This record gives sequence, C-alpha cells and structure tokens, in this order.
Amino acid sequence: EEKGGNSLRVLVATDCHLGYLEKDEVRGFDSFDTFEEICSLAVKNKVDFLLLCGNLFHENKPSNSTLVKAIEILRRYCMNDCPVQFQVISDQAASLQNRFCQVNYEDPNYKIGLPVFTIHGDQDYPTGTDNLSVNDILTAGNFLNYFGKTDLGCTGVGKVTVYPVVIRKGETYIAMYGLGNIKDGRLKRMLHEPGAVNWMQPEFQDETPSSDWFNILVLHQKRTRGSPGDAISELLLPRFVDMVIWGHEHECLIDPQEVPGMGFHITQPGSSIATSLINTEANPKHALFLEIKGREYRTTKIPLQSVRPFEYAEVVLEDQVDVDPGDEASIHEHLHKVVSNLIDKSREEASSSGSKPKLPLVRIKVHHTGLSTINSKQFGQHYVGKVETPQDILLLTKSGQRLQTMQESCNISEDLCPNELNQQTVEALIADSNIKPQVLPIDDFNSALHEFVEGDDKRAFHACVQQNIEEAILQEKKSLTRERTSSENLQTDALGVFEKQKRSTTTEEQRALDSDDEPIESSDPEESGGSQQAGKKRRAAPGGGSAAAGARRKTDLAAFQRVPVKEDDAATARKRRPPVAAGRYGAVIRRRMPK
Amino acid sequence: EEKGGNSLRVLVATDCHLGYLEKDEVRGFDSFDTFEEICSLAVKNKVDFLLLCGNLFHENKPSNSTLVKAIEILRRYCMNDCPVQFQVISDQAASLQNRFCQVNYEDPNYKIGLPVFTIHGDQDYPTGTDNLSVNDILTAGNFLNYFGKTDLGCTGVGKVTVYPVVIRKGETYIAMYGLGNIKDGRLKRMLHEPGAVNWMQPEFQDETPSSDWFNILVLHQKRTRGSPGDAISELLLPRFVDMVIWGHEHECLIDPQEVPGMGFHITQPGSSIATSLINTEANPKHALFLEIKGREYRTTKIPLQSVRPFEYAEVVLEDQVDVDPGDEASIHEHLHKVVSNLIDKSREEASSSGSKPKLPLVRIKVHHTGLSTINSKQFGQHYVGKVETPQDILLLTKSGQRLQTMQESCNISEDLCPNELNQQTVEALIADSNIKPQVLPIDDFNSALHEFVEGDDKRAFHACVQQNIEEAILQEKKSLTRERTSSENLQTDALGVFEKQKRSTTTEEQRALDSDDEPIESSDPEESGGSQQAGKKRRAAPGGGSAAAGARRKTDLAAFQRVPVKEDDAATARKRRPPVAAGRYGAVIRRRMPK
Repeated sequence: EEKGGNSLRVLVATDCHLGYLEKDEVRGFDSFDTFEEICSLAVKNKVDFLLLCGNLFHENKPSNSTLVKAIEILRRYCMNDCPVQFQVISDQAASLQNRFCQVNYEDPNYKIGLPVFTIHGDQDYPTGTDNLSVNDILTAGNFLNYFGKTDLGCTGVGKVTVYPVVIRKGETYIAMYGLGNIKDGRLKRMLHEPGAVNWMQPEFQDETPSSDWFNILVLHQKRTRGSPGDAISELLLPRFVDMVIWGHEHECLIDPQEVPGMGFHITQPGSSIATSLINTEANPKHALFLEIKGREYRTTKIPLQSVRPFEYAEVVLEDQVDVDPGDEASIHEHLHKVVSNLIDKSREEASSSGSKPKLPLVRIKVHHTGLSTINSKQFGQHYVGKVETPQDILLLTKSGQRLQTMQESCNISEDLCPNELNQQTVEALIADSNIKPQVLPIDDFNSALHEFVEGDDKRAFHACVQQNIEEAILQEKKSLTRERTSSENLQTDALGVFEKQKRSTTTEEQRALDSDDEPIESSDPEESGGSQQAGKKRRAAPGGGSAAAGARRKTDLAAFQRVPVKEDDAATARKRRPPVAAGRYGAVIRRRMPK
Repeated sequence: EEKGGNSLRVLVATDCHLGYLEKDEVRGFDSFDTFEEICSLAVKNKVDFLLLCGNLFHENKPSNSTLVKAIEILRRYCMNDCPVQFQVISDQAASLQNRFCQVNYEDPNYKIGLPVFTIHGDQDYPTGTDNLSVNDILTAGNFLNYFGKTDLGCTGVGKVTVYPVVIRKGETYIAMYGLGNIKDGRLKRMLHEPGAVNWMQPEFQDETPSSDWFNILVLHQKRTRGSPGDAISELLLPRFVDMVIWGHEHECLIDPQEVPGMGFHITQPGSSIATSLINTEANPKHALFLEIKGREYRTTKIPLQSVRPFEYAEVVLEDQVDVDPGDEASIHEHLHKVVSNLIDKSREEASSSGSKPKLPLVRIKVHHTGLSTINSKQFGQHYVGKVETPQDILLLTKSGQRLQTMQESCNISEDLCPNELNQQTVEALIADSNIKPQVLPIDDFNSALHEFVEGDDKRAFHACVQQNIEEAILQEKKSLTRERTSSENLQTDALGVFEKQKRSTTTEEQRALDSDDEPIESSDPEESGGSQQAGKKRRAAPGGGSAAAGARRKTDLAAFQRVPVKEDDAATARKRRPPVAAGRYGAVIRRRMPK
C-alpha cells in the first residue's frame, strides 16, 4: 500500500538522545547514526510523518556540534519534493507551540516531504523565562513540529490544557494528544486532581463525528505497572484514548499491549540508543511502523541496524559449578568464557543482519560473596579492540544485593535519572540547616537549581524569581479585581491582558467543568443550545488543503471543548466501539528478530 | 534603479551582538530590534544580499532564546519568493564553509529571497574539535552563508588560504575575500610573514579578466591607524583589494576613506548596538547601502532608527565656572543640568526621526580632583523612568587620568574585549608559579581556557589536547614520510588523506610562490603554458543559473591561483586602474543625520 488513500502511515521512534557521549570519539556518533537510520526508514517506508516521543536531544543546551549534526540530518531527509498527503485540521496555534503557529510543511517557502512531530522529554524540557526547549530552535528553523508543550506556572499543582493535533487523511481522523514531560510526581498529583489536566476536543461541522476518530496520547514519563513510586500508572490516563505511545522508558516493549479495563493499547518503543549498561537496554532496539485507517491500526516493528550491539549477562559466582570462590584463576577463567561467548553472539547477530559491524558493548553483572576481588580495569585489558568500553565490562555486586535483581527491570528509570537524587540532597540540606526560605518556594528553588546545573541554563534563577514575582502581581491584581467586582477597571497593560486571557480561559474551563456530566452529544436543550451558539462563533473546519490555512491558524479556543468526563468511566469505555487492532484491516506483520 | 541589471546592491552592517544583555528585560531586546531593522532595510532597498562582518552573535554558545529569536527574524525576512539576481561562480565548497557546500539560495527546497553572508567575529568565533561557530548552526539551517572561516592548526604562526566568493551580476564581478576573526597578535605576525596568508584568485575561461573585478576584503579585527599594539594596521592588508569592510570596531566610520598608497578604501560600518558606555559608541549608528557596477561603487549611509539613544558628555569639574569644588551642592546642580540637557537632546532627536522612543542611555564622565565624592547610585535615582540605566550615568575619574582621554578613541577596543586581560593574568600566574608546562603549549592552554570561560565551550580543553595530539601525529608521519622520500607508502586512512591534501596544497602554494615574480598575465612561455594546462583540467565556469551548480560545487583547488605578489608592491598598485568612487556612475548620496 502506498502513501495515498485513507491509511495514515507513521514511523514512531523515541529517546534518540542526540549528542549522548559526544566527546567520545567512537560512541559520540552512535546517537546520530541511529537517528539517521530512523529518518531513512521513514523515507523508505514512505510514511506520512515521523513521530518522536521526547529526548530527541540528550541535553536542552546541546553543543554547537550536536545542533549542526542534528539539523544536517533533518535537512537531508525531511526537505524534498514529496507531497504531504494529510492535513492538520485543528487550530494549529493551540496545539503547535511555535511563533509561526503552523505545521511546518504548510510554509510555502519550504519544500518539506517528511514532517517530524515531537514532544519534549525530561532531558530536553523547556526552561527559562521564555520556556524554551532545544526543540524550539529546530521548530523556529522549520525542521520540527513541536507539540505537547505546557506552561504550568509556579504555584500549586498547576493546570494543563492539552489541545490535540487533529490530522485528517482521506476518511481517517487522528487526534494526537501530546504531553511533554512533566515531573512525574507533579503529573501524578495533577492526574489525581479533577480538572487539573484538561483534554480538549475540537469540533468541526460537517465532519466525521469525533467518536469515529482515532485518539493517540503521546507522553514521556516514568512508567509503572502497579508498583508505587513517582512513576505514572497507566491507570491514571484518560479512557477516551485509543493508543498510548510511551516515551522515556528505554526498554523496547514496542508491540501494543492492551490495558484491561482502560480501552487503550500502549506501545513503548524504547530508546534508539542505550544510555545505561543495564539489562533492559540490551534488548534489540526498534522503531514502530504504525498504519491507521479509520479506527483500525496495524503495527510493524522494524529492527534498528545501526545500534551498537550491547550484550548483557549476570553471573552468580557461587552458583557456578566450575568456579571455586577461593580460587581467583577459576573465577577469571569463567568470566572470560562468558565474555567471549557474548562477543561471539554479538558477531553472529551483526553478520546475520548485514549491517556494518560496530564494536559491541558488553556488561557482566557479577554477584560475589565478597571474598575475592577482581580488578575490572585489568580484566578489560584483554578486550581492547574487541569490546567498546573494555574497562566497563564487569560490574561487581555483593550477593546481599542479589535479591533486588528481580525487581530491577521496574527500577531502570532510576538509573537513567539521577537528577531526583540530587534534588533530594538539596531538600535535605535545606532541612538540615533549618533554613526556612521566605521568598521562593523550595520546590521552585529546587527546579531552578536543577535547570542551572543539569540543563546548563544560566537564566534559571532569574526565571524562577521572575515567575514568582509575576505570579505575585497576578494574585494581587486578581484580589483587587475581585474587590471591585468588575473587570472594566482592568488596566490594558500587558499583565492585564494576560490576566484577561487567563480569566476567559478559566471561564471556558469552568463551563466545561459545569457540563462534566453531559457529554457533547447531550440532548439536554440548555446545554446543546449553548454549544450550538458556540458553534456559530466557530469557523467551519476547512475541507483540507493549505489555502484555508491562514484562516485556521488563529487561536480560537471556542472551537475546543473539553472531552466529556462521562466517557471517562469504565462502563462507557466498554460500551464504546473499541479500536481494532489487526482486525479486518489486515494481520499484524512482525519481522522476526535474529536470535 | 531596481534589482536587475549590472549593478550589485548590498546592505552592509556589522557587530549586531544578538543576545547582548539578554537578561535585561528592557535592553535585552535592543540587539534583536536593530537586527530586525537591518533586515527590513535590506528588503526595503531591494538589495541583492545582506553582508555582515562578524559578531552577529554576542556569544558563540548563545541561549536557546537568542537562537530562536535570531532564526525567527532571519526566517521572516530572508524566506520569500523574490528572485535572486546574482550568481556565485567560484568554487562554493572552497569559500563557503558548510557541509552542503553551496550558497543557500541554490538549495531547491528553500525559497530564499534575501541571502545573508557573514564572517565570524571574536565573540562568535569557531571553537572545539569540530571548529564550529554558532554561525554554523544557522548555516546548517540554511539561513546564512558563512564564509571566511579558517583552521589555523596549533603549531607555529599558521597559514591561511583565503578563497574568495566570486559573485557575478550581469557584467559586474565581485571577488569577496572573507577573513573571520583571528587573534590580532597572531594575524599581525602572519601578515608580516611572507606566504602565511594566501589570497587565492579563481580563473574562469571566457570571462571578464580578473583585473576588471571588484575585490572586497571583509575582516573583523582591532584596527589601528599607525599606533602600535596588537591591532592590525591597514598598511598590512594586500594592495590588490579595492575595498575593505572592517568589522569589530564599534565606532561608525562608515564613509569609505582612501588609504594613501594602498589603492583601497576602508569602510568601518560600526556596531549596530552600543555595548560600552564610551564616547565613540555615542555616535549615531548606521548601515551602509553599497552599490557596485563594474569597478565603480557608490555608498549611502542609512541611519538606524531603532538604536537606543545614547548621550555622552565629559565634564572637568575644575574647569566649570559655576562649580565650587568644595561645595557638593554646586557640583550636583551642575551635573543635573548636564544630564537634563542630554535627555532633552535625546528627546528632540527621537521626535525628529519619528521612531518609537526608547529611554536613552546617558553617560557623563566626570573628571574631579579627588576632593569631593558623589554617590552615583543616589544621583541616578532622579532619572528613573527617564534614563535607561540611571545608576550608570556618572563615571568618576580623578583628574590625573584626564590626560589619557584624548587617546581614548584609539583604545576603545580594549574596553570591549576584557578577555585579553584575563589571559595575561593566566600567563602571569603560570610565570609566577614557575610552572613549565611540558605537554601543552601555554598559548593553546590559554586559548582553551578562554574558550571554556568566555565561549562557554565545555569541550575546549578536550579539543586543545586533541589538536595537539593530531598535530604531533602528523609531524611524526611527515618526518617518517620524508625519510622514505616517497609518498606512495602513505596509509590511506583519514590522517593520511588529510596529510596528502595538505601536501598537495603546499605544492600548489609552492608553485605559486615560485611564480611570485610573474603575474598571471605573464607572457613567459613556460609559465603561461603551465597555467594553460591547469586551465584544461579546470571545468569551464558556468555561464550562470543554478543548473550547473552541481558541477561547480566540488572543491577544485586547481581552479584557484594565488594572487600574484607583484601586484602587491606600491608601484603596480598605482599603475592599476583604481576603483572609482562616486565617479561617472553617479554622485554619492548621503542622508543627513539630524543634529
């Protein structure tokens, strides 16, 4: 099947971590190699667009070198004459966060054949007074369509309103909800608090009703399946969604899995590069080729060939029959045998896949009883030229810690994000010193410190102070306004206008909240009357094509309506026509991986 | 006269310092406002291209916010349907340093109506192992044509070869030689050393002979007119040049001035923003509208309206009749009068120019005898809301320093570049501690430290070590090769190839050096025979249009020839037909500034 028709073709990949280990003369190129492969796969499979789920960049302030390489790759693969065969029919200013307020391929001065959509992750999240991510630079340069950006403000839990990018291709409608990374703890609280996360639904006259759309949620968070902690449980996500594309987790669990009772499937593509030498990163990396037609989809997992091979094994010394725990030579011999086997395995896989071989990464986690010691660096000397970082092959742990290994796959994210630890140290420090900050909330101070140190954002503290001052002024003004009981005395200066906007949005949201018990299709005369009036103010959704793009671009919040909460209870979700996976649309095709 | 025809229209501006004071909520926008004005002037005057002479950015690693704003401005003004009416006919890979190896408007996937050419300055100079400037990011994104980039290597004085961008518009040919900033001391030594700076001249068959071209040199250095120090004397520049466009110096000396005996004119456009509160920055800022037809040119200075007004005065307290040096009140009264007059002057100028008024900067340099003290901060309190940085109005100096004020205009660059001072401190530190670095040359260590601190380049030390190692390997290989007396045993790995290239260039240069006494037009049979042979290997220069662009892009060093040194002595320069300023081509038009 080719690019035209009703079937939307998407290549999904995530966590490319461009610039990871960029100082390493060998591994420094890995992230770019694989990102280039992903782009080439998108072109080869004639997809409509490439969808990335955050952490395209390893840092929010990447080096000039990383930016140049990234731009060069995007320019080479995305800029061409191929016609784009889908339309973004929702309000682009609301769902695409750039000052040009439009999807990149509609700019008549560019020939873009492969649009790329991305949200931000935890490494490339927006910072500073301008709330800018490195993705904004590439969006300004018209290389990316950056969506899912939120501005939470400083006080309280905060509130986000998620406007989907609604894509039409022939008779297929896709509403793509993007939620760039928010600190897990905070998002968790927000998802628990009613009304803190608002999922908006645009309405179009004379179009396929939204119940026939395919709803995708793209997010970038720590994921738990039941276990506690700060991670986001899939059970907290809204039920109206048909498919969740989960970024951040590096393990490849790319085959869509149904979540019982929630009415959606989750695909977790996994990173395109291993950034930790842990078990789950050793699984083969994939991109996902996703085809959607109406409310049916099919997926094809595509193995990434350019990924540096990574072999992982665990050895419990006391369980090995050929090892005498007191005899260092026998330990060495055994471990060398394990490493050699892994190197052989890696070579076989590389030769069968036909890709240009890269030196593999090898990691052996050795559980010992503490009696003998092994010099990892000396051990690695044998593998110079055979293994990429020979000094890192062995990871020694005392057997006491062995019990935890089973739970390790759940905790991998902690290995990836040591940031939280640092922050706790700061909090502890403040607690220890018995300091009680009077001016800035500790949370904000923490965030600013984190952004300053980890995000290399020199303006972090400035932004933090600024936001708090603005927030304070707003609060002050609001209380003044309330006393006056009229908004007519509001000054028309910038802050006033901003507040007005904020207030009108709040009213909008309030209205949506009031109608929580009534879905949009409600026959209640008062409600539907109101919504029809709103409908008149709305402009009709254009039939497609970029001629009407200009009219469509202006933010027109009236065109959006909060997704009715009624759909959000399990009973309705079950009644609703479920998304069809591998149904009459065709069987799921899976390319088998070489074992 | 319109865009077509034989007359090339260029807008010249420099030192825009995008991102200067970006944390300042008011002045942070100044650099962008004026850069936007410059771009709009380019569009309004229908120029063929915009030429910038370095320091487009204030830092080589600007914040995400600065990058986004810069890209947005370039995108708004440069991307459009206007046809570009000139051709770059020289080898683009040699003179434009980007991996796409072509001038930006020839990329068929972009509609570029206003090409921008720039060299780098001292603030946005390329750093790191990749030798990348922020200008490379914008070049990768196809917003800039970055030229004049050199890679000096680490050892010795170094050598640069400058390939011009040769532009043809109708019958007008311009060879534009770009020389991005090199440390003044180093460039000075290079300009003194024969053969260290090689000015290349491309040859085209069936084209206007190069003696009829208009040669422009664009550079970004400290400038002296006679006085010693590290700055570059205009007498060191090559005489074959017709016009020198001098960046870096912030004072606007934009009217081309002839340099006696050198055969060229110099225009020093001056920065588009004041980055120091000194005398020379208070002069009105301008852009230069330059028209070139054949070997004739005319210039029009265009005042920049968006520049924040800056008023400067010097007061010698003991010379004032109404001031009693012992009476603080009389001093205050006098200074307030001076400030008020400057504010009034600034207002009048703003209203006559019709631009949206910005609060002015005011600086009074007060020479006192040390008897009375004035609190600058308290003094400034009176001007909150009237002057932009009221606390900075007064600069107090003891009269002993007064004698130096006359020389100040020569020393302004030192105020702009405190970097040198820091470096001297480091050198002093090393000398004091009696450390003798064995591994890295002190110079390189200094540069790396400077890049690390000032350029915010985390990889500076890495790059420094890397380059020294590579250099050492090269030296080693070279000496080995010499022993073998044959180059056939050279390994074909990357280093080998690099060395080969280097060696062949050297041969080329050697040949050029050998023929130093013979100009290209020489009738010596052997010489001209050799050059004709070279001519056969060369591809014929395309007649224009982008169809032949592909063929033209490949680096073809044979097409370049060093500018014969014979032209470089004064006698020949005098004999040569001089460039005609304001000749029969039309009178020089000057827009008068409001006084």
